[in-house]
Amino acid sequence: MPVGTYDAYVERLKKMKPNIYLHGKKVDRTGDFMKGGLFVIKETYDCANDPKYKDVCTATSHLTGDKINRFGNINMSKDDLLKKQLMTKLLCHRVGGCIQRCMGIDALNALAIVTYDCDQANGTKYHERFNKFLKYFQENDLVGNCAQTDVKGVRGLRPGEQPDPDQYLRIVEVKEDGIIVRGAKVCNSIAPYADEIVALPSRLMGPDEAAYAVAFSLPGDWDGIKIMALPGGHPRRKKLTAPIANVGDVESMTIFDDVFVPNDRIFMNGLEHPDVVQYAGYLALMFAHFHRHSYTGCKTAVSEVLASQAALVADVNGITKYPHVREKLSHIIGTAELVYAAGEASAYKAVKFPNGSYVPDEILTNAGRRLAGQEIYNEYAILADLAGGISASLPTEESYYDPETADLVAKYTKRNPKYTAEEAHRIFRMMENKLCDPFSGAEMVAGVHGGGSPIMETITMMSRYDLEPLKDIAKYLAGINKDIPRYERPTATPRAMLDKFKKTAKK
Amino acid sequence: MPVGTYDAYVERLKKMKPNIYLHGKKVDRTGDFMKGGLFVIKETYDCANDPKYKDVCTATSHLTGDKINRFGNINMSKDDLLKKQLMTKLLCHRVGGCIQRCMGIDALNALAIVTYDCDQANGTKYHERFNKFLKYFQENDLVGNCAQTDVKGVRGLRPGEQPDPDQYLRIVEVKEDGIIVRGAKVCNSIAPYADEIVALPSRLMGPDEAAYAVAFSLPGDWDGIKIMALPGGHPRRKKLTAPIANVGDVESMTIFDDVFVPNDRIFMNGLEHPDVVQYAGYLALMFAHFHRHSYTGCKTAVSEVLASQAALVADVNGITKYPHVREKLSHIIGTAELVYAAGEASAYKAVKFPNGSYVPDEILTNAGRRLAGQEIYNEYAILADLAGGISASLPTEESYYDPETADLVAKYTKRNPKYTAEEAHRIFRMMENKLCDPFSGAEMVAGVHGGGSPIMETITMMSRYDLEPLKDIAKYLAGINKDIPRYERPTATPRAMLDKFKKTAKK
Amino acid sequence: MPVGTYDAYVERLKKMKPNIYLHGKKVDRTGDFMKGGLFVIKETYDCANDPKYKDVCTATSHLTGDKINRFGNINMSKDDLLKKQLMTKLLCHRVGGCIQRCMGIDALNALAIVTYDCDQANGTKYHERFNKFLKYFQENDLVGNCAQTDVKGVRGLRPGEQPDPDQYLRIVEVKEDGIIVRGAKVCNSIAPYADEIVALPSRLMGPDEAAYAVAFSLPGDWDGIKIMALPGGHPRRKKLTAPIANVGDVESMTIFDDVFVPNDRIFMNGLEHPDVVQYAGYLALMFAHFHRHSYTGCKTAVSEVLASQAALVADVNGITKYPHVREKLSHIIGTAELVYAAGEASAYKAVKFPNGSYVPDEILTNAGRRLAGQEIYNEYAILADLAGGISASLPTEESYYDPETADLVAKYTKRNPKYTAEEAHRIFRMMENKLCDPFSGAEMVAGVHGGGSPIMETITMMSRYDLEPLKDIAKYLAGINKDIPRYERPTATPRAMLDKFKKTAKK
Amino acid sequence: MPVGTYDAYVERLKKMKPNIYLHGKKVDRTGDFMKGGLFVIKETYDCANDPKYKDVCTATSHLTGDKINRFGNINMSKDDLLKKQLMTKLLCHRVGGCIQRCMGIDALNALAIVTYDCDQANGTKYHERFNKFLKYFQENDLVGNCAQTDVKGVRGLRPGEQPDPDQYLRIVEVKEDGIIVRGAKVCNSIAPYADEIVALPSRLMGPDEAAYAVAFSLPGDWDGIKIMALPGGHPRRKKLTAPIANVGDVESMTIFDDVFVPNDRIFMNGLEHPDVVQYAGYLALMFAHFHRHSYTGCKTAVSEVLASQAALVADVNGITKYPHVREKLSHIIGTAELVYAAGEASAYKAVKFPNGSYVPDEILTNAGRRLAGQEIYNEYAILADLAGGISASLPTEESYYDPETADLVAKYTKRNPKYTAEEAHRIFRMMENKLCDPFSGAEMVAGVHGGGSPIMETITMMSRYDLEPLKDIAKYLAGINKDIPRYERPTATPRAMLDKFKKTAKK
Repeated sequence: MPVGTYDAYVERLKKMKPNIYLHGKKVDRTGDFMKGGLFVIKETYDCANDPKYKDVCTATSHLTGDKINRFGNINMSKDDLLKKQLMTKLLCHRVGGCIQRCMGIDALNALAIVTYDCDQANGTKYHERFNKFLKYFQENDLVGNCAQTDVKGVRGLRPGEQPDPDQYLRIVEVKEDGIIVRGAKVCNSIAPYADEIVALPSRLMGPDEAAYAVAFSLPGDWDGIKIMALPGGHPRRKKLTAPIANVGDVESMTIFDDVFVPNDRIFMNGLEHPDVVQYAGYLALMFAHFHRHSYTGCKTAVSEVLASQAALVADVNGITKYPHVREKLSHIIGTAELVYAAGEASAYKAVKFPNGSYVPDEILTNAGRRLAGQEIYNEYAILADLAGGISASLPTEESYYDPETADLVAKYTKRNPKYTAEEAHRIFRMMENKLCDPFSGAEMVAGVHGGGSPIMETITMMSRYDLEPLKDIAKYLAGINKDIPRYERPTATPRAMLDKFKKTAKK
Repeated sequence: MPVGTYDAYVERLKKMKPNIYLHGKKVDRTGDFMKGGLFVIKETYDCANDPKYKDVCTATSHLTGDKINRFGNINMSKDDLLKKQLMTKLLCHRVGGCIQRCMGIDALNALAIVTYDCDQANGTKYHERFNKFLKYFQENDLVGNCAQTDVKGVRGLRPGEQPDPDQYLRIVEVKEDGIIVRGAKVCNSIAPYADEIVALPSRLMGPDEAAYAVAFSLPGDWDGIKIMALPGGHPRRKKLTAPIANVGDVESMTIFDDVFVPNDRIFMNGLEHPDVVQYAGYLALMFAHFHRHSYTGCKTAVSEVLASQAALVADVNGITKYPHVREKLSHIIGTAELVYAAGEASAYKAVKFPNGSYVPDEILTNAGRRLAGQEIYNEYAILADLAGGISASLPTEESYYDPETADLVAKYTKRNPKYTAEEAHRIFRMMENKLCDPFSGAEMVAGVHGGGSPIMETITMMSRYDLEPLKDIAKYLAGINKDIPRYERPTATPRAMLDKFKKTAKK
Repeated sequence: MPVGTYDAYVERLKKMKPNIYLHGKKVDRTGDFMKGGLFVIKETYDCANDPKYKDVCTATSHLTGDKINRFGNINMSKDDLLKKQLMTKLLCHRVGGCIQRCMGIDALNALAIVTYDCDQANGTKYHERFNKFLKYFQENDLVGNCAQTDVKGVRGLRPGEQPDPDQYLRIVEVKEDGIIVRGAKVCNSIAPYADEIVALPSRLMGPDEAAYAVAFSLPGDWDGIKIMALPGGHPRRKKLTAPIANVGDVESMTIFDDVFVPNDRIFMNGLEHPDVVQYAGYLALMFAHFHRHSYTGCKTAVSEVLASQAALVADVNGITKYPHVREKLSHIIGTAELVYAAGEASAYKAVKFPNGSYVPDEILTNAGRRLAGQEIYNEYAILADLAGGISASLPTEESYYDPETADLVAKYTKRNPKYTAEEAHRIFRMMENKLCDPFSGAEMVAGVHGGGSPIMETITMMSRYDLEPLKDIAKYLAGINKDIPRYERPTATPRAMLDKFKKTAKK
Repeated sequence: MPVGTYDAYVERLKKMKPNIYLHGKKVDRTGDFMKGGLFVIKETYDCANDPKYKDVCTATSHLTGDKINRFGNINMSKDDLLKKQLMTKLLCHRVGGCIQRCMGIDALNALAIVTYDCDQANGTKYHERFNKFLKYFQENDLVGNCAQTDVKGVRGLRPGEQPDPDQYLRIVEVKEDGIIVRGAKVCNSIAPYADEIVALPSRLMGPDEAAYAVAFSLPGDWDGIKIMALPGGHPRRKKLTAPIANVGDVESMTIFDDVFVPNDRIFMNGLEHPDVVQYAGYLALMFAHFHRHSYTGCKTAVSEVLASQAALVADVNGITKYPHVREKLSHIIGTAELVYAAGEASAYKAVKFPNGSYVPDEILTNAGRRLAGQEIYNEYAILADLAGGISASLPTEESYYDPETADLVAKYTKRNPKYTAEEAHRIFRMMENKLCDPFSGAEMVAGVHGGGSPIMETITMMSRYDLEPLKDIAKYLAGINKDIPRYERPTATPRAMLDKFKKTAKK
């Protein structure tokens, strides 16, 4: 049954070997620290089996024709892209933020394209290998983590120039049946509870960096993979339970401590063929691109959740009618609408790639993701503004249940009579969770950096945007050129970067 | 031949009676002051006849099945909306800004819907009358001006509360064969060279404001219509001609000095039936909505033109490589992309109305138009930044041709050797036109107010956005509600405003 | 010895009766939860005794001529204001943020002025009483908390209109020897470890709200005062100790559960004389004003600390040289400079009040505080941007000491070779504290709301700014008026609000 | 009589030789094109003789002890700096913008310092020479123009690397009695009506660019100086005269077509002594610094004028009471307050230089000037927003006087009954002048670039800001350093740049 269940997933986790390092101990995947992350992943299984959501949360495998969880699907049409974006948004509503599982599928979509293109050009055999893996992934409805971000050492230096060559994941040895890799990947939000760790390069690699042009997938508990875990979540509550308080994750620095990767799990190996190295940057960018497109779904939801919470807390405070309040809500809503529209319009402009995949427009996707990243802290600022200082000085939960104080704190927490004291308490407690909490801090950081920070989107946009035909408009208006060609920017994709790389390399 | 020509248009103008008041004189439509505006309108005829553009600049009339100029077309499909947006953008590229002719067609689209809805509810006969007029309009490929913005007197007071009741256009007398109207409309950018003046209400009217619920169309030189003209344009050049210098318009305050409107030209008359008055605000908002959707096309072009000019002047200055320059260009480009995406995604979400028209999503359209309005001055600021102070202190054109100074000013105007001295001169002269010029000032003002200023878009967005289902997300997360309904905002249109109005009126 | 010591302060705390409600228990002031707050307060004693800081951290009492801690000083000169601002900034540098003790002294400064003015106008005797209290406060170098922010119930309703009349602190009974008060104050950041709780009105009160016009000071453990405590702080560390990790506070909702205030501690009682009620708003605003002026010191430090951390983490990451990094640092620094300049220039413009106090300019102070409030989230966004995603996914502290992982995580945490692995760890751990932490979340909220949110500053500015003389400039330029008076805005203070109130009341 | 008169100034202009190139003709200084500029300069003479302003508009010469016009004064105290800032603001109020005459005095102040420092280090004799010139300048109350901005050719190349070596002003020949210079300076706003053209380097020069290290002053009509004039101003009005319509300027590209400079007018000559070249950048920056400090006065006035006009037009429109209107006014006012405070606080921190001059703080001055530059277009956007679209479509002036239309346009221009129709007309005409006008366009460009664009201020700030002591705060908080030194940033001045240059040069 290719649409899997949460229970089956949990069973798999239980069987995995302990390779998670938490607070100085090596632990398995059954501890309480996993609860927050599992609460989130559960939604991705349940909704795919729920009539209310299954139309968007499932898809049809292009490999088998089976109905599968959309988190295992390769986008073979514009509709797939639109549905993926919608699914991401709807699921994020349910957990009040990141749905966490998109990294894996974005990595698989990037591999589907790049392995094919690489094989076509270089005669390698990655795509077939990848499809075999993908079939297994889909049939078992696996959870994938994408290990992309290298620790990077000194930022100004290229991988091959680092004092410590392991600051980017690399092949340290080639064997008959596989390779040995070494390095570490950070910002791996779900590595501790992923079935598979999909490793991709994080940047363009030069001809002398062939050992860094490497991609593969391995089970999360594979020998030599050491997961440095950082559980994230809201402080647990005792009596006032609520979905928001159950949400969490386990971040990870995933260390590849001389790990053997068998051949059938290798999807790129720069040492195999000199031209493969060119595909490292292409793959890195293609993943980033799909992931940024996913952001146009999740970040819309993040904004809508914030707008929803802001509207609710404004109502409890009794200030909804004030023009400045409506203007602030409208600002968050406007951002959500524009970011989502960017993702949708990117999907409508998507182009078909040789392997059959559809790739959304890269410039517009980046423009949307950038706006989201630029606005995230401001949206929290608006929430803080409308919530008021109480968010940072609410009496502790116990005060609301201690007989000596319960009535008093209830009396002084109540605001708009439309809401009971408990409802007011619930809402302000949610404000505390949202504004004064390690997890919400991490959400803000992720809002800036997840998928690439605004400066990266600017760089990507400008790398892809061809200013010459644009300048023709001005040249015509100034009277330098006699006429103006009809100017419609063609759809942009990371393919252009590969072509440019090849052209440069030739010279 | 329903796709008309510029020559036929000019012939019509020549025949019109003089009712244009310019610098204290009553003049006809043949003077030099018209040149700038005609230069722009010419493009709308020429491109509809040009193989390079005719696919977007023509459409098929739903009334006759004829191929017509798209500026006379009612949007009967999502594709119509997308093409209208694209046409607007492409034509605006050609004139470096506003294409001017959209007001008329946006007014006709609003009338097509509202007359139908009004007739259905109230048994009036406006739609048939309108269709007859529309057929005539399409067959002759007429240029329409929309006279919507009333002078408004004291802003805080409603039309019926004004000390002078004529501050909003109103019916002062009802006759057997028509009505007499009085009032004045401003910001009528092309009234002096429009075939038809289409007059619409500018706001919601109350039951005691029935005389203000009036819509009609009249030829531009109709008796009693007095056009107070304000020619706009860049200072004429003598030798260094260029398209940008040829662009202009003639703004107008259009005074209806007790004007008779014959029955067959009346499309709304609040005195005819008490319920018709409800349709005044609906019509006002429907026009604004179509016009804001047009803005997602034209304002994208305005941004792209500015980006084009900024990229060109940066290149002449030799500063393109600096990161801050690329970041600034990217900011303008990003705005263009997002605004256009908002219009596109609004069109994809469009809903079919009873008369067969398609209406794009109102919240997203407004979010896009708002971003454009909020960014316009900032985009000019970026252009000024990259152009440098020379934009405001370039020697006069004659200095470049006076033998005593020509070589010197050429020597000191040259920058990047890629560009000749004349090219540099052309580009900086364009900067002067764009930055230090009455017309560019007017373009900035229009960028804020055209179609409604950002505050109006915020108000419209929030009037239409239903916060209750949005708040359900937060209520679920806080634990107040047990579950969360699948949250997808339905397409919003001005129809909701009519329904609300009717509901309120009933009470 | 009027410059007290930390030890004496701690001795006093030990003797106080338990009236702190923490996690459902009533506790005294000796628990570990107090450590973070005490770490901060300690600096205010130590620096007053430290040759490096004593010139700014001490002052001369205008009552006794003694050298006192500046946190007990009434500002009797412009130099006092400048030194208070500087002291605030310097001490905030030392604790990486809020120094917490300013609320008390700002309250005393407001009382010094308002009690005098009230007595002069109404023949009351508050000032003498206040001075007696102040002398005691100075001599013992006490820590004061200002309890101003009422819980406020329904925001749109005035105190007298609330369904529950206790939503603003009020007098419920007048006795021979004092009054009984009821209500609750929130956002009382140091109430749990303050010697004295100074209670002030939070807004203007109307003639029918005389019972709400009340101000007084009581010891923190006084009968009937119930302190609902919320300890704030960074997660404790085991091995990697650092000042930033030691900082904390204990927020409080301070409930006055029918508390008796003896006459000699009452500094305003609206029931005593009908005109006293007018002074409630004046006092509220005067406190806000001094507190916002203090913000020009502390918020400058907050920005400088953030800039310092951003510069340091950028250096560890090896990205200092990139223009966008320097631009971002420069943005934070510019804000710090402008906010501090606003406070300084306000002090230079200060006016002497009848009691001898100096009051800084209110419009400029508010403009400075507003900028700070508008920028706070953005400054954290910049820090997050430069720090990178690692801030939200750093392995736990124990991973750096567990022999199985220590070398690996050290290897992969190191960046710029200028910094050892431990230093890099220290810096990223500080980033985690600063960005993903309940305390930093609370700091952001406080940055918006502390002393009044930006919207309050806008309202205050515009209440005080006289637009009429400003408009005279435009009237002259337009040719409406013949000449323009020399336009220099006079210093603005909350006194204008009192005068306006009195004028309005008369009518 | 060292406080001169406007009449004496005009007499001098009349006597000057024609060397102004206007619209292809060489003209003298008596034409109508000068009216706008003279209208502005007149205020600088009249106010120095007007009891209402003379306290700020005059000063005491440190050379002669005479009372002089402050536009000839060297700032020898903090009070001088404060008064100069205030004078600038007050005079700008009177002309609705730039007072134009500050460039000259800012250049003289820079020369006073740099000639002294250069002489002390290198044994040159510039300071005495300069003082002699200054005495003459003061005694005759001359108007000075500063010719600083070179045309710069290719921006990325240094002066010595340009394909055309004349793109920066340079010495082409050294003679016994003087030098011959060649080049062109732009953005010389008042060169056509200045008594003296003071030429300064525009940037740091390297050892191989000694011929570019040149400074001098010459009468405006000196042989070989060719002034390419660009008259700026609002369109002249016929009947509705108003101060705003009288304001104008004449911009200039000032060409030095092999001009002989006699020795007594040379204040820097890099060919005279190898070390003098180091002082070129120091002089360039010192002028920029004084000029940016002047901007804290004039830009405050520009904002206040805009706020004044915005408040007035909002009142005519009857929208003053709306919160968004007050918020927008408050934003402009807040910027004015902060920019002025930056200038004031810079003055209070000023340091005394060896020659006796006082130099304000450079970091804070730049922070203030930068904010002004960043906000200028936004302030116009606010004005456009509050004025409404009528600013861009007001009937022509003649329509208000033509008997056939006068009553009608008056009727439809009237708004708030507080204002007569003529007053409303005056105000909207002023809006047209301010928003849709070549001169206002130029004002916006000048608001960005005058004194250096925001990016230049960022660069200056960061060149001067020492990040190392700032980072010590973070190092202490992170536990890397044991303690934190008391952190107060010392006053920064361009002197640091000279010292750095010398240090670098030594190596």
